[in-house]
Amino acid sequence: MNVVKPSAIRELLRLGADPQLISFGGGYPDPAYFPRKELAQAYEDVLADPSSSALQYTTSTGLESLRAQIAARMQRDGVPCTTRNVLVVQGAQQGLDLISKLLVNPSDLIVTENPTFLGALIAFNPCQPRYAVAPMEEEGVDTARLESILASDRGAKLIYLIPDFQNPTGVTMSVERRRAVIDLANRHNVVVVEDTPYRDIRFSGESLPTLKSLDTEERVVHIGSFSKILAPGLRLGWIVASEPLIEKLGLLKLAADTQCSTLNMAAVSKLLETFDLDKHVAMIASHYRGKKELMLDTIRRTFPADVAYTNPNGGLFTWLSFSERFDTARFMQERALPEAKVAYVPGATFFPVDQQTNHARVSFATQPDDAIVRGITALGRVLRDETLRSR
Amino acid sequence: MNVVKPSAIRELLRLGADPQLISFGGGYPDPAYFPRKELAQAYEDVLADPSSSALQYTTSTGLESLRAQIAARMQRDGVPCTTRNVLVVQGAQQGLDLISKLLVNPSDLIVTENPTFLGALIAFNPCQPRYAVAPMEEEGVDTARLESILASDRGAKLIYLIPDFQNPTGVTMSVERRRAVIDLANRHNVVVVEDTPYRDIRFSGESLPTLKSLDTEERVVHIGSFSKILAPGLRLGWIVASEPLIEKLGLLKLAADTQCSTLNMAAVSKLLETFDLDKHVAMIASHYRGKKELMLDTIRRTFPADVAYTNPNGGLFTWLSFSERFDTARFMQERALPEAKVAYVPGATFFPVDQQTNHARVSFATQPDDAIVRGITALGRVLRDETLRSR
Repeated sequence: MNVVKPSAIRELLRLGADPQLISFGGGYPDPAYFPRKELAQAYEDVLADPSSSALQYTTSTGLESLRAQIAARMQRDGVPCTTRNVLVVQGAQQGLDLISKLLVNPSDLIVTENPTFLGALIAFNPCQPRYAVAPMEEEGVDTARLESILASDRGAKLIYLIPDFQNPTGVTMSVERRRAVIDLANRHNVVVVEDTPYRDIRFSGESLPTLKSLDTEERVVHIGSFSKILAPGLRLGWIVASEPLIEKLGLLKLAADTQCSTLNMAAVSKLLETFDLDKHVAMIASHYRGKKELMLDTIRRTFPADVAYTNPNGGLFTWLSFSERFDTARFMQERALPEAKVAYVPGATFFPVDQQTNHARVSFATQPDDAIVRGITALGRVLRDETLRSR
Repeated sequence: MNVVKPSAIRELLRLGADPQLISFGGGYPDPAYFPRKELAQAYEDVLADPSSSALQYTTSTGLESLRAQIAARMQRDGVPCTTRNVLVVQGAQQGLDLISKLLVNPSDLIVTENPTFLGALIAFNPCQPRYAVAPMEEEGVDTARLESILASDRGAKLIYLIPDFQNPTGVTMSVERRRAVIDLANRHNVVVVEDTPYRDIRFSGESLPTLKSLDTEERVVHIGSFSKILAPGLRLGWIVASEPLIEKLGLLKLAADTQCSTLNMAAVSKLLETFDLDKHVAMIASHYRGKKELMLDTIRRTFPADVAYTNPNGGLFTWLSFSERFDTARFMQERALPEAKVAYVPGATFFPVDQQTNHARVSFATQPDDAIVRGITALGRVLRDETLRSR
């Protein structure tokens, strides 16, 4: 495997460290809402117990108690599920890595939303797949386009989707389209990978059924994560899938890194015994909703009228779309960074096939309120000036 | 990638959970010697700090402070090294996974000691390599055989070696052979992967120079781990290599799981600020030395005289060798488990090419002293009985 490319995400992780800059770039959750004290108590409890095996090796599929808690949580979300359907992974990213390793051979086709999560492409690329894409619309991915891709290319191995508050667009897939996805996956014998890092962070509207809950032929592989609802520094996520798939993925996990941190699994398992995660998530969601409203209000007040933006019902991101000839990467380099001291993620890298240059991903999650207003206002000013110049 | 095989290690992890059994099978360190209280304090300190970023994402190469501490530790061990030569990984296992992903394509040749660490084969197998092996001798790997392999097969990409207290044999490579390895790797343009999980756990004799410290052409990739000297449940190890290699491995790490747990890295970094790791390791080594002496004494007293065993100067394992027609797997199944209630690792899986059946790996590290005497004595009794029967 020799496919190693410099990564835009990585560059942004570096940029994010510059205190001068107001970065709307990273996919970071707000550290103010990590349950730091409760986690400290959980680590203390787990490490105080001399008979605890939290510092020892454990099974590669993950700590039994945590797997059971994840299975129970999935059940409450409408997914029939036992401990044996759960594999604990090193964040959702490792889920994507293991699944593609298992299912994708060089030249196989992966079908994604257009645009899609860059980190998924980074996980998939070492398998040397081909990509086909179906555009994101208001109701989610264009299922008619998905269908025509699957009908015309027999090499499709998996469809990768983020149904809730998609990264990067913030769009949520309608129930009708969720059903359509399951139907066409069944008919075309394809695995569906459902990635749900933002699912619980809903601002408004009813929760929609997961693809996994609609799955009739055990062909949905569901990925979840504690990164956005507890803390990403724990590196804990999960895969829920059929027992035979979990068995195989567990062996790949063993080969890749033996297991997740026993201590982190034990501490999170301890935390979940008493901590009201749903209440915590509702608090986070309410906080992010406020930040989103503030950002969209500021965009409305300060951006040129022809800049389109999505109004997500949850998650961390809004997606900006500019006129077709606008280049968000060049604009960031030449004007947004030096003049507005603002960073976002230029959209091109989120497109697996056609690197469209006229979009940007903006996160409303991590900057304090005053920085959101200051940064978006400064960006709006430079954007208006750019519009004037280009006339 | 479709190469998924059930794993003997995994089976043993399961067996190890049976309280009836005296298992000498696992490669577990003794949990009595985890610095539990000191780690608890480190987690408390790190999580008490409201400005700490220990719960947030960090860079994929690992926390800067921990990389610097690892680099300093490597320098003290004779390896010229900066922070930029260090990648923090999810235990040594992930080091093996990332290195083989980067360097090995299907049908490339990997050269190993015979026998070698099963976990390394599990990490390498997804790359679909061929294997060639050079026998372990008293002075370590047979370097003349290594040379003839490299001379006759141009497909060799890497040589995988455990120079100190090798897993599974407990054998240590002499300085002369270490120099010979570097010399022939240079002449044949091959990468050397040096795996050192047991290096610090030395019972007797002088520490020998690492292969990395003898490296003249930046072709040694060194892997180390906190699993045996702090605790495996932390899942923290490291790779030390040239900057260009660390850069590429860091991108593979990003693709595989984004990063190691920020919290675990922060806590271990905090611990290392004040904790005397060298003193701790000396205490562990003295403890394991006692257990080894006890096990070898009991073997001498109770085993048939024709069973050979190694007398390691460090690490966790001794290696038993029986007469050529003896089958340690069958014997364990039919007699050791049911009659002696003792488990070990049958040796066959440690041989990448010729699955020799007449060896076994025995760990002296985790069982309490009385269980070592009881288990080895019971095993000796059944072995003597087997010898009588076969006459």
